[in-house]
Amino acid sequence: IQPWLTFRAVSSAPGQPPASHSYETLKVSQVREKVLHVELNRPDKRNAMNAAFWREMVECFNKIAQDSECHAVVVSGTGKLFTAGIDFLEIGQVFLTVEGDDVARKAWNLRKMIREYQESFSVLEKCPKPIIAAVHGGCIGGGVDLISACDIRYCTQDAWFQVKEVDIGLAADVGTLQRLPRIIGNQSLVNELAFTARKMMAPEAESSGLVSRVFQDKQAMLEGSFELAADIASKSPVAVQGTKINILYSRDHSVSEGLQYMATWNMSMLQTEDLVKSAQAVMEKKSPKDVVFSKL
Amino acid sequence: IQPWLTFRAVSSAPGQPPASHSYETLKVSQVREKVLHVELNRPDKRNAMNAAFWREMVECFNKIAQDSECHAVVVSGTGKLFTAGIDFLEIGQVFLTVEGDDVARKAWNLRKMIREYQESFSVLEKCPKPIIAAVHGGCIGGGVDLISACDIRYCTQDAWFQVKEVDIGLAADVGTLQRLPRIIGNQSLVNELAFTARKMMAPEAESSGLVSRVFQDKQAMLEGSFELAADIASKSPVAVQGTKINILYSRDHSVSEGLQYMATWNMSMLQTEDLVKSAQAVMEKKSPKDVVFSKL
Amino acid sequence: IQPWLTFRAVSSAPGQPPASHSYETLKVSQVREKVLHVELNRPDKRNAMNAAFWREMVECFNKIAQDSECHAVVVSGTGKLFTAGIDFLEIGQVFLTVEGDDVARKAWNLRKMIREYQESFSVLEKCPKPIIAAVHGGCIGGGVDLISACDIRYCTQDAWFQVKEVDIGLAADVGTLQRLPRIIGNQSLVNELAFTARKMMAPEAESSGLVSRVFQDKQAMLEGSFELAADIASKSPVAVQGTKINILYSRDHSVSEGLQYMATWNMSMLQTEDLVKSAQAVMEKKSPKDVVFSKL
Amino acid sequence: IQPWLTFRAVSSAPGQPPASHSYETLKVSQVREKVLHVELNRPDKRNAMNAAFWREMVECFNKIAQDSECHAVVVSGTGKLFTAGIDFLEIGQVFLTVEGDDVARKAWNLRKMIREYQESFSVLEKCPKPIIAAVHGGCIGGGVDLISACDIRYCTQDAWFQVKEVDIGLAADVGTLQRLPRIIGNQSLVNELAFTARKMMAPEAESSGLVSRVFQDKQAMLEGSFELAADIASKSPVAVQGTKINILYSRDHSVSEGLQYMATWNMSMLQTEDLVKSAQAVMEKKSPKDVVFSKL
Amino acid sequence: IQPWLTFRAVSSAPGQPPASHSYETLKVSQVREKVLHVELNRPDKRNAMNAAFWREMVECFNKIAQDSECHAVVVSGTGKLFTAGIDFLEIGQVFLTVEGDDVARKAWNLRKMIREYQESFSVLEKCPKPIIAAVHGGCIGGGVDLISACDIRYCTQDAWFQVKEVDIGLAADVGTLQRLPRIIGNQSLVNELAFTARKMMAPEAESSGLVSRVFQDKQAMLEGSFELAADIASKSPVAVQGTKINILYSRDHSVSEGLQYMATWNMSMLQTEDLVKSAQAVMEKKSPKDVVFSKL
Amino acid sequence: IQPWLTFRAVSSAPGQPPASHSYETLKVSQVREKVLHVELNRPDKRNAMNAAFWREMVECFNKIAQDSECHAVVVSGTGKLFTAGIDFLEIGQVFLTVEGDDVARKAWNLRKMIREYQESFSVLEKCPKPIIAAVHGGCIGGGVDLISACDIRYCTQDAWFQVKEVDIGLAADVGTLQRLPRIIGNQSLVNELAFTARKMMAPEAESSGLVSRVFQDKQAMLEGSFELAADIASKSPVAVQGTKINILYSRDHSVSEGLQYMATWNMSMLQTEDLVKSAQAVMEKKSPKDVVFSKL
Repeated sequence: IQPWLTFRAVSSAPGQPPASHSYETLKVSQVREKVLHVELNRPDKRNAMNAAFWREMVECFNKIAQDSECHAVVVSGTGKLFTAGIDFLEIGQVFLTVEGDDVARKAWNLRKMIREYQESFSVLEKCPKPIIAAVHGGCIGGGVDLISACDIRYCTQDAWFQVKEVDIGLAADVGTLQRLPRIIGNQSLVNELAFTARKMMAPEAESSGLVSRVFQDKQAMLEGSFELAADIASKSPVAVQGTKINILYSRDHSVSEGLQYMATWNMSMLQTEDLVKSAQAVMEKKSPKDVVFSKL
Repeated sequence: IQPWLTFRAVSSAPGQPPASHSYETLKVSQVREKVLHVELNRPDKRNAMNAAFWREMVECFNKIAQDSECHAVVVSGTGKLFTAGIDFLEIGQVFLTVEGDDVARKAWNLRKMIREYQESFSVLEKCPKPIIAAVHGGCIGGGVDLISACDIRYCTQDAWFQVKEVDIGLAADVGTLQRLPRIIGNQSLVNELAFTARKMMAPEAESSGLVSRVFQDKQAMLEGSFELAADIASKSPVAVQGTKINILYSRDHSVSEGLQYMATWNMSMLQTEDLVKSAQAVMEKKSPKDVVFSKL
Repeated sequence: IQPWLTFRAVSSAPGQPPASHSYETLKVSQVREKVLHVELNRPDKRNAMNAAFWREMVECFNKIAQDSECHAVVVSGTGKLFTAGIDFLEIGQVFLTVEGDDVARKAWNLRKMIREYQESFSVLEKCPKPIIAAVHGGCIGGGVDLISACDIRYCTQDAWFQVKEVDIGLAADVGTLQRLPRIIGNQSLVNELAFTARKMMAPEAESSGLVSRVFQDKQAMLEGSFELAADIASKSPVAVQGTKINILYSRDHSVSEGLQYMATWNMSMLQTEDLVKSAQAVMEKKSPKDVVFSKL
Repeated sequence: IQPWLTFRAVSSAPGQPPASHSYETLKVSQVREKVLHVELNRPDKRNAMNAAFWREMVECFNKIAQDSECHAVVVSGTGKLFTAGIDFLEIGQVFLTVEGDDVARKAWNLRKMIREYQESFSVLEKCPKPIIAAVHGGCIGGGVDLISACDIRYCTQDAWFQVKEVDIGLAADVGTLQRLPRIIGNQSLVNELAFTARKMMAPEAESSGLVSRVFQDKQAMLEGSFELAADIASKSPVAVQGTKINILYSRDHSVSEGLQYMATWNMSMLQTEDLVKSAQAVMEKKSPKDVVFSKL
Repeated sequence: IQPWLTFRAVSSAPGQPPASHSYETLKVSQVREKVLHVELNRPDKRNAMNAAFWREMVECFNKIAQDSECHAVVVSGTGKLFTAGIDFLEIGQVFLTVEGDDVARKAWNLRKMIREYQESFSVLEKCPKPIIAAVHGGCIGGGVDLISACDIRYCTQDAWFQVKEVDIGLAADVGTLQRLPRIIGNQSLVNELAFTARKMMAPEAESSGLVSRVFQDKQAMLEGSFELAADIASKSPVAVQGTKINILYSRDHSVSEGLQYMATWNMSMLQTEDLVKSAQAVMEKKSPKDVVFSKL
Repeated sequence: IQPWLTFRAVSSAPGQPPASHSYETLKVSQVREKVLHVELNRPDKRNAMNAAFWREMVECFNKIAQDSECHAVVVSGTGKLFTAGIDFLEIGQVFLTVEGDDVARKAWNLRKMIREYQESFSVLEKCPKPIIAAVHGGCIGGGVDLISACDIRYCTQDAWFQVKEVDIGLAADVGTLQRLPRIIGNQSLVNELAFTARKMMAPEAESSGLVSRVFQDKQAMLEGSFELAADIASKSPVAVQGTKINILYSRDHSVSEGLQYMATWNMSMLQTEDLVKSAQAVMEKKSPKDVVFSKL
């Protein structure tokens, strides 16, 4: 009866074995060394986000956050498009029939549900490993919320994006309105997309900065994404994951606050062996890829 | 003697009749269903912003904010250009001859005036209906402050933009320095414009993201703006106006704060009938435009 | 024995004579009226940032901040490239051999060093005069931190940029992660650069907004930079420097906070004679360049 | 036809004549030189806050804010007690019967009303002149919201305070929950009061810091309040009102932000003649009360 | 196989049956209608906080947060004292032997553990029901962290408090340094306690505002706490829990932000039936305790 | 020619020899092991703060911050009182005769001076060692600014405190308005003091929380202060100084931000040997005073 060991095992053990992933709506596979591929996997439902999906996203990315064998992630969709967004038949009903004896109590329960759904995408930011969204076909409604919480976005030339929520009578509430304006350098366009629900095609997505690269087709895009992920995965995890954590911290703080946090972060992280190993590699004109870093 | 009714009528009555608009410097007309067109209307003075203008902007947009018959607004200028900016002869004099027995008292009165002038454009953000700026010809000095407080910016191919203030000896103080850097994805360019007062032409305005679309001429631009506004105006006002309010809230808060506010906002807004109506429209494959939403 | 005079002379005297600049790693010259040119000047070491450099940056830009004869600055590199970044042999050793009896004490000393190094670039922001970075050849690692703290960025067509830090095992900690995402309107790209350490060439730097202009060669770039600086330097220093201070304040505060600060700033600054002189110039159809402004 | 003069007269003219005050629910009189006494004046209704009151508070304190003849204010209640709080019969009905076709639209209108009611007390903070609340008898519900927005609180020994809102089924929403915890140095007590709606008597109000002085009876309290107000009113208005503005600014910002704002504020305010006059008074051993300061 | 139902049942279902509580280190009982009593229950170990405790706190208060049968909570300790704080033998060892191949990796794992331990007390704030800490005997180290996260603090006259952490070589890191200064109105004292680890006895705890009431003995204190809790539990849960949520929100935001959030919160909550029921009770001169409110 | 060594010696060397202190206006002596006593030392001028004082404060406390032989500081005044505040004859003149060709330029120079004077007291917070202010006789004007930036305040029973600034025509601008309201749990009193410049005597200073202990006379107070300082100085400097840094960080951030920073701070600091040594001392029932900690 060792409660502590149990506790530690669940949440903070270093050097865990690779997590096992088995889901209804997601498919997880290892595609390169230290690179996982997470696929939205309800192709017959256009990868619509049903209740299982919202729950499994949290489970999946919490596992990945703890998995020292994974250094980078690619997220894409199976079938004809990335995702049709929320599964309105299933989820819409839940919201429309929320329990509660009066308006206040319904509001109370709705707020809890919204907070949980927000969490399903916030796990992408809380996971310190870089996450690359690879979009083909349509990326609709909740799909835009999802990719906005990823670190890097690639797409195919036939991809399109749609902030769909106003068309179903609500203001988007799981992240698009908060994250998209920080991602794209054209606020006039962001507003236009959010107010009209019009489709944005791949070229406009690239020129506006929503995606940083457009590929000929899905195969090429996945190949490019895996290569990018593998490149990232080969580097010091202390350096890469500290970079993600501090970029996100800086997004939400002033430059001065960001610098102070960075210094406090690196006062321990600069004591890593990875720095010594990298210094030697530089001396010896080796590539960082030839260095073996400890697990994190 | 019913003070409450009076009070309510002034400030918070739902379902008010359309506001009547009559101004010296502005012209307001209805150009589409639920779309108002506000024109800067001193063409012989190049739409220079005189004292009446600063006062009437507040009056006009406060009325629009309360007017449930208006769902979207287009702002443009009459005559040869959008606006020459502040009416220096009239307003400059006011600032140069500010009353006050010593430097501190003059400062006190200047601060009050600046705060009032800032408010003249902040009403554009406080009005929850989307506002589209449609710029032709020059948009100078105060004009840039004005359009920076709008949600979407369109222009003609002969339009140009100039952050003029340094050339008249002051740092711009009614919004450009605060809002422009958040609108454009090229801070090097923002600084260049603000330090040099050089003109930026339409193509650079488009590529930098200041405007999201450039039109052949003023007629085409107005047509495009009215269509965009009409499209927005046809959608659920609960969805659209909640979107504007939350995008602006998110601009000034961290992502985490923005998400929390969003959830608290939507815990009541998701109880709207608009959601049910939209759900039905989706089921019945109707367009959102076919749905009749209640007034807001 | 007049301690006050000494004190004042060091830190706050207006109208000081031009500062004298003599450094090991920097070269300072006057290239136009009121324009200084600061060159990274260790060409045989690829302008690598050694200990002297970090110290001299602070000294140099503190002097410039106090120098009323200087209104604008251009920063460039001598030799084959802008800078190779940190001088790893010299500085890396310092970090790797930090003193301290245990991990906590080493962390304590590392934090102090990082804070000092951060300060070496923060002086660029604390100096109220506009600073233009003019980059040719490579701009690597610490070089990106440096130019991110400048106001305007120009480069040659053969320039390239590299956020190098992950390759030497650390998260960049002297400003890139805090400032770069606010400069560029493409966060997907920012993340890609920071996670992979890949080179970004001049065209991508321009389209993403890192630089606002690309020149044929170094000579043309310097000429263009000097002209831009001279143009800025000819304007009211009250207007220009107040603009820089308020743009930076606004970057780190909400729009509402920025407007309030701006009003409080301008309640004294609008009482400048520069405004009167500019008003007269406007009346008399003169260029701002024909106005003589007092020192600041 | 001089719109500007009209505009200026309404909002920013220095040296205005004393405002005339005539209200249904408030009584305003001058009780000392430059000191106004504002009384809640519905004694037969226990000074309950009806619709007229909420509206007149805004009108009254906006006038006082502009009135250069007033340097300090005392607020008290006529009749048997300070105030019974909101006039539930009149106002409660308004909230319970709010218009709106669905929950979202009712929420929209409720929010506007709450914001207006909040503004009725926020004017006390926006008015830069010190405001002293003098409480006798009960201070219930909205009364606590009101005095929390004042600068100094005095009471009689028979006074009591009650955060009443939970007993009528709502969380207090016009200021108590935001301001009271910053006023009192005992958060355990603040929570107890807010959760239980129990009465707090004068001695506990004094020991907890809600009031800074307790008087024998109402007459003595008013005398003490008028003396305090007169003392404040005799000092430099630049100094006193700048102090109020900066204390409130500091309450809502970090120490570092507060110091920066303070320096920017005083860079003009230290150029006041009041400083010279005070310096002379110090030299000549005169009291500040012998100095004549210009109007503000 | 209905994943959605499962999901909803776990996290957001209204009207759940009372939670069952069974723990190693905590004892939970119902002591009044809608009032739970949570006891730290390792009396033979002086209620020292071992690994099971840290884990069970989260589980227990997450359940209580969801339990609509519970409206208020009292937390006390079994045995001779409230708690001796962290179980140094068990937990200290864990921290001293943290895994990790180098300093950076150990730091990474330590940070995860600290964040988890912080969460163990943050659940007290995330639970929207008021929580009363009732302290007898010693409240040491982690005990102060715990009670600082409660809403109201009572103690016996033999109670004492000790911020113990500096004596074991660390800065307190699970909440005392963040929360205690906001609770007590004497920062000089807070610093003294934190720097010296000296004991503070009950009278000083009361005069400084750490506790709001001191009782003769434990029995009287528990009786008083249960009565207080029962009083709170009898009121509208919409009002009480909205009050807690908004007091905590306001603590961490400016007054202006707090007011805005409050209005957005209450735009739905004022549509509760509780307001109508309370209005009727007021009309009929009934006590709030006679009103039956729906579950929340 | 070893620039780096020079640089390191100046700013970041651990284990420096004790600093030598020699000033015109301050007297520094070692009064206990690792405890320095800093005395304001212009007794014939009532310790008025002249230009030398403002400059030497920065020099003195920057040295102390770097001095690993000093773990705690006591600040008191020589002669008849703590301090009469600013030396108005010397400093007032400087402010009244500030250079500058117009109002804006004078404002510019005034702001620089205010910022420097603010820095003179901010060094007390930037110095990570606890600082105890020991006040006898008067503590006037700038004296209140000074002690507000200290960590702990003691005084004699004849001490009095006066926020003097409004009486000389200005709002206090070197820290009182920012720090005092966070120190004292009675905002009504804080406002009264700041608006009236009245004296507050020792008993009120104690009951309001400005000081945490009152002594019979100066000798007893110094003895008590030295004992307190010696007690603090005997503990782990990693624990004590980390505590000061995090308490100040938390004062200016939300609880949630404070906790996150704390965890990031302690991820390295918990790797100190001080924790192991303290653990052993606990096992062996030794006092922390018997442990020998390494220098910091």
